[in-house]
Amino acid sequence: MTAGGPRPRVVILGGGFAGLYAARALVGESVTVTVVDRTNHHVFQPLLYQVATGVLAPSDITVPIRWRLRGQANATVLLAGVTGIDVVKREVRLDSDPGAVAYDFLVVATGARHAYFGHDEWEAHAPGLKTIEDAFAVRRRFLLALERAERTTDAAVRAAELTIVVVGGGPTGVELAGMIPTVCRRALVREFRHIDTRAVRVVLVEAGPRLLPAFPASLAERARRDLEALGVEVRLGTPVNGVDQRGVTIGGETVAARTVFWAAGNLASPLGRELGAPLDRQGRVLVEPDLSVPGRPELFVAGDLATTTAGGRPVPAVAPAAVQQGECAARNVLRTLRGEAREPFRYRNKGDLATIGRNKAVGMLWDGRVRLTGRAAWWFWLFVHILYLAGFRNRASVLLQWAYAYVTYQHGVRLITGTDARR
Amino acid sequence: MTAGGPRPRVVILGGGFAGLYAARALVGESVTVTVVDRTNHHVFQPLLYQVATGVLAPSDITVPIRWRLRGQANATVLLAGVTGIDVVKREVRLDSDPGAVAYDFLVVATGARHAYFGHDEWEAHAPGLKTIEDAFAVRRRFLLALERAERTTDAAVRAAELTIVVVGGGPTGVELAGMIPTVCRRALVREFRHIDTRAVRVVLVEAGPRLLPAFPASLAERARRDLEALGVEVRLGTPVNGVDQRGVTIGGETVAARTVFWAAGNLASPLGRELGAPLDRQGRVLVEPDLSVPGRPELFVAGDLATTTAGGRPVPAVAPAAVQQGECAARNVLRTLRGEAREPFRYRNKGDLATIGRNKAVGMLWDGRVRLTGRAAWWFWLFVHILYLAGFRNRASVLLQWAYAYVTYQHGVRLITGTDARR
Repeated sequence: MTAGGPRPRVVILGGGFAGLYAARALVGESVTVTVVDRTNHHVFQPLLYQVATGVLAPSDITVPIRWRLRGQANATVLLAGVTGIDVVKREVRLDSDPGAVAYDFLVVATGARHAYFGHDEWEAHAPGLKTIEDAFAVRRRFLLALERAERTTDAAVRAAELTIVVVGGGPTGVELAGMIPTVCRRALVREFRHIDTRAVRVVLVEAGPRLLPAFPASLAERARRDLEALGVEVRLGTPVNGVDQRGVTIGGETVAARTVFWAAGNLASPLGRELGAPLDRQGRVLVEPDLSVPGRPELFVAGDLATTTAGGRPVPAVAPAAVQQGECAARNVLRTLRGEAREPFRYRNKGDLATIGRNKAVGMLWDGRVRLTGRAAWWFWLFVHILYLAGFRNRASVLLQWAYAYVTYQHGVRLITGTDARR
Repeated sequence: MTAGGPRPRVVILGGGFAGLYAARALVGESVTVTVVDRTNHHVFQPLLYQVATGVLAPSDITVPIRWRLRGQANATVLLAGVTGIDVVKREVRLDSDPGAVAYDFLVVATGARHAYFGHDEWEAHAPGLKTIEDAFAVRRRFLLALERAERTTDAAVRAAELTIVVVGGGPTGVELAGMIPTVCRRALVREFRHIDTRAVRVVLVEAGPRLLPAFPASLAERARRDLEALGVEVRLGTPVNGVDQRGVTIGGETVAARTVFWAAGNLASPLGRELGAPLDRQGRVLVEPDLSVPGRPELFVAGDLATTTAGGRPVPAVAPAAVQQGECAARNVLRTLRGEAREPFRYRNKGDLATIGRNKAVGMLWDGRVRLTGRAAWWFWLFVHILYLAGFRNRASVLLQWAYAYVTYQHGVRLITGTDARR
């Protein structure tokens, strides 16, 4: 690591927000950067629910990780799965060529999947929404339920096909539940002959006493009212007791539904267990203030796999936090190489936004000091997302494509694909 | 079928060009139209090769069949597979609700798949290109070959990964073979660190003595020269003797290639065998001049499943022919209902075009009396395709999206998805 010697090797696991921004923070530095991901693309996760409901196309919210890093000469991308981490040999084992990759610094940013609270058998009936493949699955289920309802002559079957349950009242659940009736009323309304898509029943179930626990109570209440105005049934304080092919059991009641979506909890990536570090209940790594693993200063965790606090409160599992953690980990690598003291991670909460349907949102800025609701919040949400998506391609084209998608409910994205494209 | 009685039931199998345009030709008529397809979308097949090479997104060239027929009140769409046709009971059997659908007139337009000339085992190594799922598979194989080449340290493996063989010198083979080097040189060139994508070797194999057999010899020769200028190796008069995971055997030589695409022959849909009609060698139905099945005036075949002639020559399996056949079959249904004589199918050959890469094409109009080559032909090709795609959505937005796609090589569409997303 001396001047003129081989460059320090920084390996980054995961091409999500934390991993990608960690790599970007190392542009032009005298290190070699290797980003390992098992998919070839970075996903703008906050908009996955729009792909899932057939409003945006997958290509609107994804970029090849290679493309994003094409101008960064010190960065290499490997499409491979990680099978293990040897923290003593400082080596990551891969499931394909080149078999393993050695590191001087490692940033683990492999995120989280959904938690079914000990009921993994529910997953087959209630897919979550973290990846593009998840979004395809949700879209397929949503559209196929309408197709089956159109074909059947049995009224009870039809009612169950036209009932969609969303489990979880966080931002993903709220945004998904709000978009479904919007699409059913606007985009699909003239396409069927035997069903009225405006009659689709959407039930949003939350075990806690309110929606959007990270938001102030007044905004959560506003979100509930906005959802109900769209026809969504919001069930608060009602934990889910069972999910199977017939529907969802909530409290004592069974809601007959063929389509159930899960947005109720996170379970951290299993790679957290490879680090020899303490984990919290959700499997997240309890990191040092500088985001390193206790006793392993060369090993960092960033994004949803890390558990961090800001002002005594847990940092939420949102994209801006992941970006900031990835960048902080990268800066601490560079500080170490320069012999400087490391910086502790400080979360700058720029605000939270959740949309409800297609022209409403709730939001707060500067720790809740500014609150936005209704149309103004929606326009602000659009503005912020265009700013961030602009990293994906040029701003004018993003604006054009979005304007097009929003005005037309672009129909091409309602493609049903996949192995069970007609089940 | 008398005035005031139940409306005659026209059932159309297949939502491709023939089926969709047959349905459209019945708009506003006193019939009920039922379109049955096993996918929910119509595909603009002439552009599938652009999805396969990651130039366009699937949503750019597909529309939900429902959306296309949303304004046609007499049309119903059923997403279902056909398991059989009872031509005596006049009933089509389905693999899902409602189980069967009865007809007074039936238009069978279920097209063709690829023919492997008795070597079905080649299909696993050399997928064809007829559906969106096929395009996903080709795109995945093409992009994954580059990923494996980037990861490997074995020079022979790398060379095989960077060799792509396209079998078949018709328009699909020519267009696919021409687009691959274009994408490798322009879109991908800065994204890899261990391979030079400009060095990708593309081999186009054709058993016959020339490319584009439906085109005049001079245009075929020009296409060959244009392909060779892009670096494509064109092998004429060389039948393929074998395809396996190591590569392709052509004549006595084996070309080591991990990626092989098949564009070499058609095999008609197996539903042709359900009609009790004479078939040709490719399984296509030998129809009467009015496109009906001999002895079954209520039964029509249109598109790639029918074999027809124009001026003593076979009508080619291209989109305009399918459109014209679908419309002709529909008009003959209406003529029959009005007690008028049926019209024989007459193919109006508007011309043929094939692109080579991104700014060249060969084309002929009015039976070859006008020939186009080079950039002029390419611009003409673009103009014609925008005109036709305009049926999909409004013309201005098609132009904008295409301009964007062509200028930027939109990176979002290079998404690798599917169950074997890393194989």
